[in-house]
Amino acid sequence: MESYKTLEIVRKNTDSSVFHLNLNRPSQFNALSLDFFVEFPIALSSLDQNQDVAVIVLSGAGKHFCSGIDLSSLSSISERSASGDRGRSSERLRRTIKSMQAAITAIEQCRKPVIAAIHGACIGGAVDLVTACDMRYCSEDAFFAIKEVDLAIVADLGTLQRLPSIVGHANAMELALTARRFSAREAKDLGLVSRVFGSNSELDKGVNTIAEGVAAKSPLAVTGTKAVLLRSRELTVEQGLDYVATWNSAMLISDDLNEAVSAQLKKRQPRFSKL
Amino acid sequence: MESYKTLEIVRKNTDSSVFHLNLNRPSQFNALSLDFFVEFPIALSSLDQNQDVAVIVLSGAGKHFCSGIDLSSLSSISERSASGDRGRSSERLRRTIKSMQAAITAIEQCRKPVIAAIHGACIGGAVDLVTACDMRYCSEDAFFAIKEVDLAIVADLGTLQRLPSIVGHANAMELALTARRFSAREAKDLGLVSRVFGSNSELDKGVNTIAEGVAAKSPLAVTGTKAVLLRSRELTVEQGLDYVATWNSAMLISDDLNEAVSAQLKKRQPRFSKL
Amino acid sequence: MESYKTLEIVRKNTDSSVFHLNLNRPSQFNALSLDFFVEFPIALSSLDQNQDVAVIVLSGAGKHFCSGIDLSSLSSISERSASGDRGRSSERLRRTIKSMQAAITAIEQCRKPVIAAIHGACIGGAVDLVTACDMRYCSEDAFFAIKEVDLAIVADLGTLQRLPSIVGHANAMELALTARRFSAREAKDLGLVSRVFGSNSELDKGVNTIAEGVAAKSPLAVTGTKAVLLRSRELTVEQGLDYVATWNSAMLISDDLNEAVSAQLKKRQPRFSKL
Amino acid sequence: MESYKTLEIVRKNTDSSVFHLNLNRPSQFNALSLDFFVEFPIALSSLDQNQDVAVIVLSGAGKHFCSGIDLSSLSSISERSASGDRGRSSERLRRTIKSMQAAITAIEQCRKPVIAAIHGACIGGAVDLVTACDMRYCSEDAFFAIKEVDLAIVADLGTLQRLPSIVGHANAMELALTARRFSAREAKDLGLVSRVFGSNSELDKGVNTIAEGVAAKSPLAVTGTKAVLLRSRELTVEQGLDYVATWNSAMLISDDLNEAVSAQLKKRQPRFSKL
Amino acid sequence: MESYKTLEIVRKNTDSSVFHLNLNRPSQFNALSLDFFVEFPIALSSLDQNQDVAVIVLSGAGKHFCSGIDLSSLSSISERSASGDRGRSSERLRRTIKSMQAAITAIEQCRKPVIAAIHGACIGGAVDLVTACDMRYCSEDAFFAIKEVDLAIVADLGTLQRLPSIVGHANAMELALTARRFSAREAKDLGLVSRVFGSNSELDKGVNTIAEGVAAKSPLAVTGTKAVLLRSRELTVEQGLDYVATWNSAMLISDDLNEAVSAQLKKRQPRFSKL
Amino acid sequence: MESYKTLEIVRKNTDSSVFHLNLNRPSQFNALSLDFFVEFPIALSSLDQNQDVAVIVLSGAGKHFCSGIDLSSLSSISERSASGDRGRSSERLRRTIKSMQAAITAIEQCRKPVIAAIHGACIGGAVDLVTACDMRYCSEDAFFAIKEVDLAIVADLGTLQRLPSIVGHANAMELALTARRFSAREAKDLGLVSRVFGSNSELDKGVNTIAEGVAAKSPLAVTGTKAVLLRSRELTVEQGLDYVATWNSAMLISDDLNEAVSAQLKKRQPRFSKL
Repeated sequence: MESYKTLEIVRKNTDSSVFHLNLNRPSQFNALSLDFFVEFPIALSSLDQNQDVAVIVLSGAGKHFCSGIDLSSLSSISERSASGDRGRSSERLRRTIKSMQAAITAIEQCRKPVIAAIHGACIGGAVDLVTACDMRYCSEDAFFAIKEVDLAIVADLGTLQRLPSIVGHANAMELALTARRFSAREAKDLGLVSRVFGSNSELDKGVNTIAEGVAAKSPLAVTGTKAVLLRSRELTVEQGLDYVATWNSAMLISDDLNEAVSAQLKKRQPRFSKL
Repeated sequence: MESYKTLEIVRKNTDSSVFHLNLNRPSQFNALSLDFFVEFPIALSSLDQNQDVAVIVLSGAGKHFCSGIDLSSLSSISERSASGDRGRSSERLRRTIKSMQAAITAIEQCRKPVIAAIHGACIGGAVDLVTACDMRYCSEDAFFAIKEVDLAIVADLGTLQRLPSIVGHANAMELALTARRFSAREAKDLGLVSRVFGSNSELDKGVNTIAEGVAAKSPLAVTGTKAVLLRSRELTVEQGLDYVATWNSAMLISDDLNEAVSAQLKKRQPRFSKL
Repeated sequence: MESYKTLEIVRKNTDSSVFHLNLNRPSQFNALSLDFFVEFPIALSSLDQNQDVAVIVLSGAGKHFCSGIDLSSLSSISERSASGDRGRSSERLRRTIKSMQAAITAIEQCRKPVIAAIHGACIGGAVDLVTACDMRYCSEDAFFAIKEVDLAIVADLGTLQRLPSIVGHANAMELALTARRFSAREAKDLGLVSRVFGSNSELDKGVNTIAEGVAAKSPLAVTGTKAVLLRSRELTVEQGLDYVATWNSAMLISDDLNEAVSAQLKKRQPRFSKL
Repeated sequence: MESYKTLEIVRKNTDSSVFHLNLNRPSQFNALSLDFFVEFPIALSSLDQNQDVAVIVLSGAGKHFCSGIDLSSLSSISERSASGDRGRSSERLRRTIKSMQAAITAIEQCRKPVIAAIHGACIGGAVDLVTACDMRYCSEDAFFAIKEVDLAIVADLGTLQRLPSIVGHANAMELALTARRFSAREAKDLGLVSRVFGSNSELDKGVNTIAEGVAAKSPLAVTGTKAVLLRSRELTVEQGLDYVATWNSAMLISDDLNEAVSAQLKKRQPRFSKL
Repeated sequence: MESYKTLEIVRKNTDSSVFHLNLNRPSQFNALSLDFFVEFPIALSSLDQNQDVAVIVLSGAGKHFCSGIDLSSLSSISERSASGDRGRSSERLRRTIKSMQAAITAIEQCRKPVIAAIHGACIGGAVDLVTACDMRYCSEDAFFAIKEVDLAIVADLGTLQRLPSIVGHANAMELALTARRFSAREAKDLGLVSRVFGSNSELDKGVNTIAEGVAAKSPLAVTGTKAVLLRSRELTVEQGLDYVATWNSAMLISDDLNEAVSAQLKKRQPRFSKL
Repeated sequence: MESYKTLEIVRKNTDSSVFHLNLNRPSQFNALSLDFFVEFPIALSSLDQNQDVAVIVLSGAGKHFCSGIDLSSLSSISERSASGDRGRSSERLRRTIKSMQAAITAIEQCRKPVIAAIHGACIGGAVDLVTACDMRYCSEDAFFAIKEVDLAIVADLGTLQRLPSIVGHANAMELALTARRFSAREAKDLGLVSRVFGSNSELDKGVNTIAEGVAAKSPLAVTGTKAVLLRSRELTVEQGLDYVATWNSAMLISDDLNEAVSAQLKKRQPRFSKL
């Protein structure tokens, strides 16, 4: 597999189609550097195209999941933008932000589910990152904060766009304006994570089990469900229904459907070919 | 009243304007057959036009609310679509799915509130059905699953479009990708049901009381609230405000308003004429 | 400061940039009169333009936060609309409703955060009011009801448009159709309020602390976060990301950013100039 | 074929898959009566399901295409709505208008192209009708007017929604506010009709030739093009592109594609099976 | 009537409900100054509320309709924004632009039709102004240019938002990127104006006749048509149809309808009361 | 410069910032091959990043602009999709179409204007290509056809999404359903091209002059105008106004503005630095 400065891809078991994508700068608490924004979409795209991969688990190496954007990266961006013609520097800054956003949106563009397994800090840019994931789980020690406002920044990597559909508009506003820290427990109550595991190792094991469960399902149905849910987020109900009807007119009739029905009748595990 | 193969309409009390629409194939756990998709919109339309009806309660006869789409119906659809010209069979399949969707959307097109009373299994297509209802209540023994992905199917009857606005985008994704079973209690925590009743009979009684309560209110205000809320789901706040202002410029001034205000002042129960 | 018939503006501490906007007709339980709808947007606009103001706390004088729309105002509106040419009276009624809506939308048009501190009754029009606020807190004794349907009215001042994005579409429907009263505790569970305080005085103190906390942050970041979150509510994720990138290309590079970073490095409190 | 009071279905040639749907109350200048609004969607639906039909031509019997809504129908609607409870009569009126709108929208819901062949008057409701058609042609003697404002009516059967995408927003506004009559020539310049034929019989012949031309093409491609264009009208470009990609993933691979390519290579006419 | 620095309101005939709103700084070719942006919405609002007014004609005093934004205003805006904290100056500039935009959008918020009568130059900001009008006519000597790009400015007062729906997206792009001048004749061909009059005096007379024609129609129907067309511009066809049905359920039944039908039957001119 | 199989980049004059991007398979009438869809976005992206480039002219080498999609490419796509599991082949086909669409959308993602100079045939896929350009000019001998339906294909590379906003929905439908050929003259009348030049060499010269004209303007204003117009295409007017106000709060204050104003006052040509 490719080698990255800020990431590590691990396949814990060569039989498994669950791949682990680790934020891998533990000494910096996995702060998101400019390198990260270059490498992350490349890594996701390669996982998406790799037929051995069915599900991706995103976690952080070391003590924390991720402490947010790297302050030195932020400084270099802001310094570069603070000089020269104001119009041109604004235009450049806008492009920089959009390319960083695109790195995170790569999670949604990956056909396969990306599951965040969060422990320790999940702060600022890290929240932008996990809100783009398809599922989120955390350990008891995890804590969260939409910290940008404390850096005098309007969060611009996706939290303000994706969090409201996860925790509701009002909770998103309260968390973003106060920048307050909240616990794993509250994250669960808010719906930001689907389950809280007692410890880091339970998190690993638990998320792995869930990921293997999804990986054992029809890849056509799993990637289709992800794609349709994401698209429906921005369509009216009527448009979304029409979209999924069109989708299924193409994708429903498949070997997977036969295999699933047959396995169900014979009460055996289905086996699906790769996508 | 009309007679249906898959449904039964019951008026428990001839004084009452609450009508009960029962899924009525208990031996099949009320699995949704092709007949159902024909009969259901007809039944709802007749209830909508019937001036004696103010509120509709949807429940399932027998042990379970509904076990989802009938597997033999699914097979007949998929077999029909698997042969002949691929383009034409896709086109036909798309129309079939759209007509099944339309059957469920009939709940939203019915002006009057439809309340789901759920016990036992509420699986797959049954979730599509209840997410289109206006309110949902269940008994302690109810359990739920967005099961389609286990049949290698992308759910296409409305769950992926309507569930996110009920439980949030993230919960909808997690439930749809894992297909895991969840309990009445979790359904309540997620906001999928508004209350859990201790037993089936408490559910019946409780929902009936709630339904009678709504049925006693101004039918203009009740049907208007349903219509405006559904429409506002797809409009911006500004457009939604303009819409309801236009709506009320037509509907606000009514005998119901006079009656409601007068009853309030005289501290008596208001009585509204039928709609 | 200006003097209002229905409102009172209080600055508890001349050092503070937290201003309190009180509904101030306690003898009427702060019912929303026609005067209120005239004065409220004026008051908010003056607070928005006042550079001494960073955060606004909205509360109610006396025993209750607000009992909803004033019945005599409602009567005068409906009487005026019930006579004369039906087309013309409808047109006039529509304009009246729209101007009342605009008074409440003034909360969203105010750049600065508006925090509702709710005690006692928060009924009918009061719910329209608080759903337009940026954050909501209440005391233990608070209770809520979307009461309009009991007056034979389709709620038309914003609840049906804004509540679904706060508590979900399904909860909004259930509360609006049943008009049932719900407690502070349930309001918290639904996400309508962010915290419940044990008593009225704890509410005052608690909200004040939260407001001072927000007021101490960069006003550019705070007002920007509010504006971007509100706009993103109606854009697709892609459009919202583009919007915030454009926003930050203009607003990110600022004295506030320098000050925030510098304070963070020196582990001191940042100090921002007014906006 | 079914028999209608206000319509006539003619198949000029039993070999042809072009069917003619005539407005058939020539003594009333084909004014649109309440019967018409009932019969029209039924007729279109039967033509849509009839596999012998590939293209539908809509014309008017007698001297004029259509003089708009029947005044006696309008009177009966307005009389019925002018009495009784104002709220209830408004609610009923809204349903009446919506069902009349639905009758015209049936043109868009018909999978097959509907071509309007217009001669003589095309006034008021007739413009609503033809703007829902897929193509429009007229003879030299045709004339048009969006006449509703002269009856003190805001046009409510589709002109205000569909005309702007045909002639532009500004032309639509000018024509709707002035209610002025405009000629066949101007209709062509505005883009309302695609061609003006010198006489009525040339119109008949010309439209027939065009219709036969479309009828000879792949029905999958023709109905798909109609469906995708209509849907794209309300989607962003990005959403529309995604939609058509999904559509074609289902419908592209077909016998029709093979036949079309093979015919092209052999320089012969393709022959497609019915849809 | 009120007195304005940059505008003049003229009622040519005390019997007439056509009011003329003149840009009135002929020595500056009616360049749009900061004063204008303050006065214009005030003037329109007063005309909107004045029951004597049915239609407003917007023209320019002197040799040209309007030469666009006043360069000294532009300079003062840009100077003010070029100093001080970059974040704060951007925020202030954004508010300035939005308030100037709001001044022009006042044309759409005015219920009554606003007709632009254009002669001589119509350049830059003047195009923003006329694209917000409901109808546009010009004299032979008129000429137009979307000049902003030549000042190194992205047009920000509405042209880029409104012109595409008038002349199509492609024409708007070509005109905005080249900033080329185009003639009255081309403006007509593009659909930007509805008619070209031979001379200035013919323009005056012609527009007056058209305005009187609209002013003689039902004010309910005229203002309703404007409102519905503007709203439908941003709704799907289905949403727009539902909106106008709701609108007409409120506004259709009126004295104006009776009067219009009765006048039509008696072949006399209808007379409507003011709005 | 890079070397391409299907394209050629030409800078006619080393002083010029107008770059010519030629479709360069004249022996195949520049039919769009699979190679093209790979190379085209790469070429556009490199031109976008190249600071020497201000404007791009897209033309075709040889006798025709472009004859549409390469039939052998189409065959290879359809063959690959016609075998194997139907669900999987549909999924693969959808991705293939989306990547071909993305190649064309690259024109819109390029910040700099792309001008199509069309001669000879512009058929099928070529129309998809030019509708994504910012301006279109052609020579007298050019001819056009939306030919896909004659290949039994629903056009899926953008024509159905972009053409309606250029020529109106109705013209797009008529051209797409009939697949008829239309002339340069009609393309001009429809608004598809902005001007028709008498000959091929006049086209070259004329487009070059126009391109040089745009290239001499402020690059900030030119790229901003393109970006804002494209974004506004999918926003409401209110959203679009807010967007451009935010844009200009970032980009308005620039060296270009000073230079443009100064040049205007001194009546000299402005000179802008590169972007």
